[in-house]
Amino acid sequence: MAMRAVIVGGDAGGMAAVSPLRALQPDAEVIAFERTRWTSYSACGIPFHVSGKVAGGVDRLVARSPEQHRANGIDLRVGHEVVELDLDRGEVVVAPAGGDHYRLGFDRLLLGVGARPIRPPLPGIDLPFVHGVQTLDDAIRLRAIAEQPGCPQIVIVGGGYIGLEMAEAYIETGCRATIVERAPQVLGLLDAELAELVTDALRARRIEVRTGVEVLGFDDGVVRTDGGDLPADLVVLGLGVRANSDLARDAGIELGVAGAIRVDDRQRTSHDAVWAAGDCTASRHLVSGRPVYMPLGTYANKQARVAGNTMGGGQARFAGVLGTAISKLCETELATTGLRLTDALDAGFDAVAETVRSVTRAGYFPGAAPITVKLVGEKGTGRLLGGQIVGGTGAGKRIDTIATAVTAGLTAEQVADLDLAYAPPFSPVWDPVAIAARQLARHL
Amino acid sequence: MAMRAVIVGGDAGGMAAVSPLRALQPDAEVIAFERTRWTSYSACGIPFHVSGKVAGGVDRLVARSPEQHRANGIDLRVGHEVVELDLDRGEVVVAPAGGDHYRLGFDRLLLGVGARPIRPPLPGIDLPFVHGVQTLDDAIRLRAIAEQPGCPQIVIVGGGYIGLEMAEAYIETGCRATIVERAPQVLGLLDAELAELVTDALRARRIEVRTGVEVLGFDDGVVRTDGGDLPADLVVLGLGVRANSDLARDAGIELGVAGAIRVDDRQRTSHDAVWAAGDCTASRHLVSGRPVYMPLGTYANKQARVAGNTMGGGQARFAGVLGTAISKLCETELATTGLRLTDALDAGFDAVAETVRSVTRAGYFPGAAPITVKLVGEKGTGRLLGGQIVGGTGAGKRIDTIATAVTAGLTAEQVADLDLAYAPPFSPVWDPVAIAARQLARHL
Repeated sequence: MAMRAVIVGGDAGGMAAVSPLRALQPDAEVIAFERTRWTSYSACGIPFHVSGKVAGGVDRLVARSPEQHRANGIDLRVGHEVVELDLDRGEVVVAPAGGDHYRLGFDRLLLGVGARPIRPPLPGIDLPFVHGVQTLDDAIRLRAIAEQPGCPQIVIVGGGYIGLEMAEAYIETGCRATIVERAPQVLGLLDAELAELVTDALRARRIEVRTGVEVLGFDDGVVRTDGGDLPADLVVLGLGVRANSDLARDAGIELGVAGAIRVDDRQRTSHDAVWAAGDCTASRHLVSGRPVYMPLGTYANKQARVAGNTMGGGQARFAGVLGTAISKLCETELATTGLRLTDALDAGFDAVAETVRSVTRAGYFPGAAPITVKLVGEKGTGRLLGGQIVGGTGAGKRIDTIATAVTAGLTAEQVADLDLAYAPPFSPVWDPVAIAARQLARHL
Repeated sequence: MAMRAVIVGGDAGGMAAVSPLRALQPDAEVIAFERTRWTSYSACGIPFHVSGKVAGGVDRLVARSPEQHRANGIDLRVGHEVVELDLDRGEVVVAPAGGDHYRLGFDRLLLGVGARPIRPPLPGIDLPFVHGVQTLDDAIRLRAIAEQPGCPQIVIVGGGYIGLEMAEAYIETGCRATIVERAPQVLGLLDAELAELVTDALRARRIEVRTGVEVLGFDDGVVRTDGGDLPADLVVLGLGVRANSDLARDAGIELGVAGAIRVDDRQRTSHDAVWAAGDCTASRHLVSGRPVYMPLGTYANKQARVAGNTMGGGQARFAGVLGTAISKLCETELATTGLRLTDALDAGFDAVAETVRSVTRAGYFPGAAPITVKLVGEKGTGRLLGGQIVGGTGAGKRIDTIATAVTAGLTAEQVADLDLAYAPPFSPVWDPVAIAARQLARHL
């Protein structure tokens, strides 16, 4: 009899498993549950919907609609929330919107249930003007505020890059935006001196950035902080996300770092009929070898592909993560991969870092912009461990060179010698990544 | 006594040696000869001077002027041509412009004498309206024509990327431009189907592209071809360059592939007091291991640094070349690295290629443009051997990821698994390079 695969979650961490599963098990019955009305959408695109940069409705952000999934032979049930896993009986308990609970049996189960925005238990956190950024319903509500007349005042709580992208989106629509961050700097994924470059760019666009300020609570139209009250027509929470692992935990499935579901490199959980992928799971860091929680859309897609393959009997493995991330804020590109210096020291590496400043193009070429590259390497081996980049157009995607080099275990010396592409519209003769690697190699 | 180092050639292949040499031999006397009046300039920038894209005089393309080199303690003699190497006596014979020949002794000699545009022995090749693209004096003359009124008709002979860049430069200044290429396609560094994408972009900008046409000679105002006469106010030769190796050959120094000076990985020639670097030398290809002639500015800089180090007693090595190249033509970016399929088969690899078409950014993000990625890999080992890219803004520099992967010996599978940077303004969720690698891996 054909296998019945049940997928919980209609976004990448679930649905991207179907095609590799079907490649191995063409007859598999696939039933998928999604509690919202949206499937396979780009949460990363929400700030660009809010800013109006992506013209048209929010469905522009949908990569594959419920109808498309159904046309692909998937029994997809939207508005259906899985509320319990009964692993002893091999069943899920489903709560359809407005309907009665029912049970459904499975042979193999994939949890692609994602994450939810962190909402600290502050007074007033549940007031209606406090929003998270996650689903496309959030996107619609957040866009509606951007379209209001009279320059609404937006307060972003948390200075991660999603929060910063939201701040820029609102500035672009004529709103006022203030970022409140408890830490001494925004963009905790970057070292302070690089984050400072981005902060300068934000401030130049009149985004107010308040670091070292703690939010104490919310009241109608007001954000209470330890630095005084801030007026706010809307509060956007940009405090990161937490894995949706309650369902798994309640069923006795092991959790790992940050309360995310622990999986092996084949995306198998501690229960032999249950797989998990995407923002609800922990990953292994490629450099430190440590378990980490890094909820990124690319991983959800890759992990779900691995899960689909191994659910179908295949031998695929998820390679692990470097934490490569990129963003564009106020024409400033920022990117990171691998270990920062503090991460590296913390992980026990005898590490040093080197920072260089160069230009994105030949100095004489129009549009040449500053670029700062910071590289981290290991003494003794000379191996590159990570890097960060902040700069103008063309700066950010250079992080891929670093990510590739770190994955391959290249030394700083080898990176300095790489045959990277040069032409005046693209790079100075010595690519900034190579310059930084040369400098770093001298210290290793 | 301090060493006397004599450098022949005032551009990158010579002058970039000074700093690493001085690092090891602070007291070395450095005397450099340059036959033109220009030093350390960007020949790659000439098309952008001609188009007017680089505002200001041609000296904007000069990275370091003769005065700057002299201020750096180099006895630099411009307008001085070295006409003979007397290796038995350890002397060079110098011809100063308008002065008498003289001899000068050296302890160690570096030849950074570059290359010169190929001028086939066709009737009329020496007519004054037939120009090469090499020195800044060429740049001045070529720019002057761009500034003439009345839409001068420019004929570019040879469809390499320098020729194509020149054609675009002239179109941008209001001239008419026709490219004549003997081969069935322009851009021999790309496979036909990718070159065709660039040809389409050129034609959309009204650059006339005539392939399969042989130039027979030149007459006043006319280019004679086997497809008929073409009117021309100016002819630009874009047939590539040939190493300036006569001086070395006449002194008994061994030449290698394409008549370029043979050097080892420390940039030493067959004579133990003579080094060479840059466009006058042959290199070793990193993938095929074969000697190749690839005259690129980045190599000149890197090789001269190695030469300076090893002249000073250091142990630096030049890693070798992948032939990484990039260009931007009519908003279309093109790039290549490593072996093309034909190169790979020719070098004895059991190779296959895969081509995919994707987009440069998230499909919904403004400015998302087509990108075509072709990758070549080796069956059995699964190793990546090379790649080519053609596409819109942001496409070209992705070649660095491929160059890094090829250098590191990564398999297509490993490249598909790389943690490359994703955000909607920069990439679709699956980077086009990873998509191509995934496709290729299926065939290896």
